[in-house]
Amino acid sequence: MKHSATLYLIPTFLSEESMDVLPAQHLEIVKQLDEFIVENPKTARQFLKRVGTVKPLQELIMHSLNEHTPESEVQELLKPLKAGKSIGLLSEAGCPAVADPGSEVVRLAHEANIKVQPLIGPSSILLALMASGLNGQSFVFHGYLPRETAVRKRKIKELEKEAIRKKQTQIFIETPYRNQALIQDV
Amino acid sequence: MKHSATLYLIPTFLSEESMDVLPAQHLEIVKQLDEFIVENPKTARQFLKRVGTVKPLQELIMHSLNEHTPESEVQELLKPLKAGKSIGLLSEAGCPAVADPGSEVVRLAHEANIKVQPLIGPSSILLALMASGLNGQSFVFHGYLPRETAVRKRKIKELEKEAIRKKQTQIFIETPYRNQALIQDV
Repeated sequence: MKHSATLYLIPTFLSEESMDVLPAQHLEIVKQLDEFIVENPKTARQFLKRVGTVKPLQELIMHSLNEHTPESEVQELLKPLKAGKSIGLLSEAGCPAVADPGSEVVRLAHEANIKVQPLIGPSSILLALMASGLNGQSFVFHGYLPRETAVRKRKIKELEKEAIRKKQTQIFIETPYRNQALIQDV
Repeated sequence: MKHSATLYLIPTFLSEESMDVLPAQHLEIVKQLDEFIVENPKTARQFLKRVGTVKPLQELIMHSLNEHTPESEVQELLKPLKAGKSIGLLSEAGCPAVADPGSEVVRLAHEANIKVQPLIGPSSILLALMASGLNGQSFVFHGYLPRETAVRKRKIKELEKEAIRKKQTQIFIETPYRNQALIQDV
């Protein structure tokens, strides 16, 4: 039997822009929540302040999560859900569990028969792919490329070959302060 | 110099559900448009009826597009944009240019220095990945698998190996009426 509570996967974004890049009905769901699993409590608080949660900000319960959180702690985080309380999962920016922590929580939630509902919101990867004019019938997301220049250049050459051989769009990400170096290597 | 008009990439969905799976500000943009490049005029009309365009439905201009539309015709479709008129691009269901026609239009729009703006909306691929509990740091989208059973089984074995070797999530799609056969092969 499924538990009555739901783990909501909440897309977030860093800009100060209006919240209506999220659908109204999904914003409504987030407003009602008062417990969250978050990548970064500081930015999560800023985001939830803009959402305008029903409960005051200082009463919201926040649990930290990152890619090093051990499974036993993740299991601990699922306890409210098992007890019938819905909670939200949010990363620092983007869609939880896509190029961001969260997939382990989701996997263990499924194992525990907890309902998981992904909410609709902006994904830089998807928007970039849509707007690229590149093949959207076949694509790969690689996350970050290696940091070391020689290794990275080899990797870029490899991806270029794959792109041509498989007619497959190759997507990767980089932090803003390393963008220039990456573009030079490309 | 960029043209003043914009090519909007509009996510669509087939269900009769409320339109507020799209952000309010993006719905507002779609309402103002009266010319569209569409995969299927019939479903596009149904979608735009639900959106509630400012211009009456019968006055909307629709141009058909599919994966076989020759480049010369696509160039023709870009004329209103070059003349300063914004238009919308929509597929039958989903995000244009992702697992759907449209990337050719986008590519040629970029070549012609036309502004391209992807709008936010539901993507089955992204939502499925978020909700899967599988690795979202590295994933591939393959589109459809081969239809013939023996070939398809070989392909599935291959993807399974890749998934394990690269710790990479493998995503593919299937039409509802072939789902059962696909699941059997898996």
